[in-house]
Amino acid sequence: MAVVGASGYLGAEAVRLLSGHPSLRLTQAVSAHHSGEPLSKVLPWIPRSQDLRLASPSDPLDVDAAILALPSGESLRVVPDLLARGIRVVDLGADYRLTTPGLYEKVYGRAHTDPEGLASAVYGLTELNRERIATARLVANPGCYPTATLLALVPLAREGVLPPHVIVDAKSGTSGAGAAPGPLTHHSEAAASVTPYGDGMHRHLPEIRQALGMLAGTPADGSPGITFSPHLVPLVRGILCSIYAPGVDPALPEPWMHVLETAYAECPFVRLGSVPKLPWATGSNACLLHVQASPPSLVVFSAIDNLVKGGAGQALQNLNVMYGLPETTGLPLGGLGI
Amino acid sequence: MAVVGASGYLGAEAVRLLSGHPSLRLTQAVSAHHSGEPLSKVLPWIPRSQDLRLASPSDPLDVDAAILALPSGESLRVVPDLLARGIRVVDLGADYRLTTPGLYEKVYGRAHTDPEGLASAVYGLTELNRERIATARLVANPGCYPTATLLALVPLAREGVLPPHVIVDAKSGTSGAGAAPGPLTHHSEAAASVTPYGDGMHRHLPEIRQALGMLAGTPADGSPGITFSPHLVPLVRGILCSIYAPGVDPALPEPWMHVLETAYAECPFVRLGSVPKLPWATGSNACLLHVQASPPSLVVFSAIDNLVKGGAGQALQNLNVMYGLPETTGLPLGGLGI
Amino acid sequence: MAVVGASGYLGAEAVRLLSGHPSLRLTQAVSAHHSGEPLSKVLPWIPRSQDLRLASPSDPLDVDAAILALPSGESLRVVPDLLARGIRVVDLGADYRLTTPGLYEKVYGRAHTDPEGLASAVYGLTELNRERIATARLVANPGCYPTATLLALVPLAREGVLPPHVIVDAKSGTSGAGAAPGPLTHHSEAAASVTPYGDGMHRHLPEIRQALGMLAGTPADGSPGITFSPHLVPLVRGILCSIYAPGVDPALPEPWMHVLETAYAECPFVRLGSVPKLPWATGSNACLLHVQASPPSLVVFSAIDNLVKGGAGQALQNLNVMYGLPETTGLPLGGLGI
Amino acid sequence: MAVVGASGYLGAEAVRLLSGHPSLRLTQAVSAHHSGEPLSKVLPWIPRSQDLRLASPSDPLDVDAAILALPSGESLRVVPDLLARGIRVVDLGADYRLTTPGLYEKVYGRAHTDPEGLASAVYGLTELNRERIATARLVANPGCYPTATLLALVPLAREGVLPPHVIVDAKSGTSGAGAAPGPLTHHSEAAASVTPYGDGMHRHLPEIRQALGMLAGTPADGSPGITFSPHLVPLVRGILCSIYAPGVDPALPEPWMHVLETAYAECPFVRLGSVPKLPWATGSNACLLHVQASPPSLVVFSAIDNLVKGGAGQALQNLNVMYGLPETTGLPLGGLGI
Repeated sequence: MAVVGASGYLGAEAVRLLSGHPSLRLTQAVSAHHSGEPLSKVLPWIPRSQDLRLASPSDPLDVDAAILALPSGESLRVVPDLLARGIRVVDLGADYRLTTPGLYEKVYGRAHTDPEGLASAVYGLTELNRERIATARLVANPGCYPTATLLALVPLAREGVLPPHVIVDAKSGTSGAGAAPGPLTHHSEAAASVTPYGDGMHRHLPEIRQALGMLAGTPADGSPGITFSPHLVPLVRGILCSIYAPGVDPALPEPWMHVLETAYAECPFVRLGSVPKLPWATGSNACLLHVQASPPSLVVFSAIDNLVKGGAGQALQNLNVMYGLPETTGLPLGGLGI
Repeated sequence: MAVVGASGYLGAEAVRLLSGHPSLRLTQAVSAHHSGEPLSKVLPWIPRSQDLRLASPSDPLDVDAAILALPSGESLRVVPDLLARGIRVVDLGADYRLTTPGLYEKVYGRAHTDPEGLASAVYGLTELNRERIATARLVANPGCYPTATLLALVPLAREGVLPPHVIVDAKSGTSGAGAAPGPLTHHSEAAASVTPYGDGMHRHLPEIRQALGMLAGTPADGSPGITFSPHLVPLVRGILCSIYAPGVDPALPEPWMHVLETAYAECPFVRLGSVPKLPWATGSNACLLHVQASPPSLVVFSAIDNLVKGGAGQALQNLNVMYGLPETTGLPLGGLGI
Repeated sequence: MAVVGASGYLGAEAVRLLSGHPSLRLTQAVSAHHSGEPLSKVLPWIPRSQDLRLASPSDPLDVDAAILALPSGESLRVVPDLLARGIRVVDLGADYRLTTPGLYEKVYGRAHTDPEGLASAVYGLTELNRERIATARLVANPGCYPTATLLALVPLAREGVLPPHVIVDAKSGTSGAGAAPGPLTHHSEAAASVTPYGDGMHRHLPEIRQALGMLAGTPADGSPGITFSPHLVPLVRGILCSIYAPGVDPALPEPWMHVLETAYAECPFVRLGSVPKLPWATGSNACLLHVQASPPSLVVFSAIDNLVKGGAGQALQNLNVMYGLPETTGLPLGGLGI
Repeated sequence: MAVVGASGYLGAEAVRLLSGHPSLRLTQAVSAHHSGEPLSKVLPWIPRSQDLRLASPSDPLDVDAAILALPSGESLRVVPDLLARGIRVVDLGADYRLTTPGLYEKVYGRAHTDPEGLASAVYGLTELNRERIATARLVANPGCYPTATLLALVPLAREGVLPPHVIVDAKSGTSGAGAAPGPLTHHSEAAASVTPYGDGMHRHLPEIRQALGMLAGTPADGSPGITFSPHLVPLVRGILCSIYAPGVDPALPEPWMHVLETAYAECPFVRLGSVPKLPWATGSNACLLHVQASPPSLVVFSAIDNLVKGGAGQALQNLNVMYGLPETTGLPLGGLGI
């Protein structure tokens, strides 16, 4: 197993989770910025990583599978070669999530250079696409916001119960913005504020709309209309999505809870319960859901650790599925709690 | 000037703001828990308070006006006597906000014992009710959430442009919950979480609906339907309301901005600008508004310091109006920034 | 295995860690406040706990070993009976830490009612007292502050290199103060502050002095003089101790690092490295140490997760030793990192 | 009045405080990065700044006095010209704090290019150097850490009561590190940690040692030895220094409190009281002191808002003194409290 981009937050989290995995063994870790350094120096909190030295992106990989945690656009340069050499890939980036080159170009402002790979990519929302993931060679791991949003919405969309408009007010810790310092995530700017930052056009919205169509059969550019509004909150880990369905009968929380409970009856990571608190998910691969009446709307709350279920944990979950292992192997079911 | 309930967060903030006010002078401060102690010991951050000793609730007030910052229900026991003695009152609590005894009993589960006072109370949302406040003897200061919400919604409701459903996703620092410790605001529970806590039925919703009707003429139990969903965020001061208007033409942010700019052209505390950050309001009496397209919705962001514009600052603003002083006297126009 | 006091922060953490332990199985959990309720409802973040119902303190325990996480003084009422029934006990409280009834009474202001148990108790600082722990029936688990302090100081004290005075400036997250709400840990009081709270006489100081004597042979009331100064910092988990040795040759960090490295060469949880960051320990049983020259002092930094190595994790580590299991069984070696 | 470097945190704070000052009027604001933009756009939280446009560093200043808030080394390039043109200068940077070119070069690694200006500079610790400040043309404003440390230590050093070693464990919010993003102050790195970052050699230590000699007559390279150890804490504003005097008679807190009370009897910003909380100083020019017995040490706690008393507020305090205004003019005496 290789992790490419091991010094970013998602790559480091993949290394951390692999260090406790009983079957998947990390044998190569790649970092453009730290090649040649011991992994234990770059990620000092992961004690089992002491023997590895970080490889350079130009070093060949000698593995069965690779987790990619690269800046936007860079997966396009490495995936074709990895697939050609028979290496299975789980890509934590966005390059293989949108299913058509046209949509990719529209959203990211550059041409997609690997349409063949794109055609073969499987969307890695494990609970809702497990069968296709099992046989995939290339898995496009969902974004953190889409993971929290879709696990709440897809079963309800499949039942056809969503109203014409749905509003997703998302609150995210700052680790979702990555390890590169910048004004938005400068501590003095972020620590005493709640910062809306989406400009109304977040890149995750096309991913959410497309996945709703693909996984729930909703029309590609029709109902439900999704408003997606991300906010940075002064936390490091965690996403809470408050998802509003206006104009829905307030007697429906129980039926909606039932739809979700049924959908995830065999899914140990996705759990229905009381209104979730973020630390219940922190450090774990859990997604915690709750439906509440808030007349004249219903609200669905969805909580995850953005680096685990919203990133590296779901990547390992997908690898478990791809290797025929029990889906929960090596992944914490429960969070720190406080 | 007296502050009754001076040791709670809102009462202490009133004392703090009065200490910098050039015309309104604090001569009595009352605290049930700290009577007899020097104010400077109980509120050690307010240096000009050194000479006062806290009075007991049974001590008579010898003042022209009083700010009440009391637990729910307790204003009912002191307001009739204060009014009878000719003392003007600004009540920071909820006892005189709902205009009918029946609604009060429905929301708070107890009878309203001062219907006469209630009939005379004026709702203290300064910018939108200034003329009635000027001649009031009893002002019911709005709650912090209604202040942030109504300053955004009332001008739009007056124009009749709001859609049938509006969703208010409110994020509040913990000081809004007051100084009494409890599980919800225990640091270890609140500091690493974003906690939805409204149970779908927040007490501020009837106040918002009633004020929309009173100040904007919307029908009492009709459109727009308001979903109000409060969340605790790990901050001390500040409320950010993200207010969603689904299904509205995405070309409308500029016209909506214009409606708000026009409504507040003469109001130095309410300002339209870029997406607000909470510290821009911290410590000040400002309310910062912005309208953004987030297709298929419009979003209005509204940011205040809950203890100032959402409480003690607006109380002083109302007293300025009641005493014919310039409305901004003694009140910070701008926040700390960071 | 039983956890008594399962709904407090340390008890809950013991339940959480046991849920991932391959050999020690939780079969009873006791809570005075929540008896009869399902553990999964009281600790909703721990999915494997779904089958247990919380027992009442009056229910008999049918286990080999018990972890006690009780309020100060309450262990005295249950330990004698547990020992009499052959149940091994690891006590997370302070009742069996001070080795003489006289010292206990002096520090806690009440008589010690179980001098026999006290005489048999073994101090549970695993790395430095492993052999005695292996055969103990009753282990007094160290406090969180003493754990972080003693792991830094004992090897240096054994070498006799400490100066006459040592200053421990300790910064702790609020979870160390427990789950009961109070003014000191009210979010609005704690979240924007660093709060010194020791009054110069913290209860952990006698424990530190005694353990230095017991484990390093320092004189009972003599050198080194230890100043212990605790501060609450706005975090939930984590303790960082900055330990100053004034007047020491600034060329000594390497020799001191060497003393510590040698002492912990066989101890996977205690690691020397660069200046530690708290999240490197969060969620793990690690203690991270570093020595730095800060002329005219040396500084030793020591970082732990107070709920794990400073509490429930060290309890499991001790149980591993008591049961002859590898010491690291079921305990995370590395923290979340961020 | 001009502020040069108006878009950094200290410059912005100077603009903010000037906006509420009744006598000192901001007429020019300079920013290398934002020249030509309206000040109200760059500092949107300061409403009274609406008319000014930011000037470029090459624009001539037409003012009586200037506050400089520039990156290290840049004041050397502008001060000579300003002084030559008769403009009084308060420099918030470090270029004129160390009194000899040799020490400056040793600490900052570059030659001091304005030894003449340096010789004329007056150290701007207002309470302890007021008379020289009154007639100064160039004031070197102290650093934030030295301000908090020296206000505690100088009166005690003057009395000759300090022991041979003093340890300053300083906890600072991240705004002290400035507005430029970097790894140390990246939110995800700083928000869940307490980070020692001094490497034992903080640049503020020579400033502290020199000022102790200058203001208290301690020997230049002798007793007391000062260990200065800075830590970043997850706050934006505020510095708490815990200053340890080991081996001092524990009966001395009252006499030491008396020394400090006497020293600051006529200083409204420096106040002795109970153990200070940081928010008591936030937003104000206060420095709050307390002495506590922590046998075998005494501890002095000192709390300030690093951007106000530790920066822009003290600059205005010095300008008040230079212009013969009451020292407190336009400066908040008390903080937000919570």
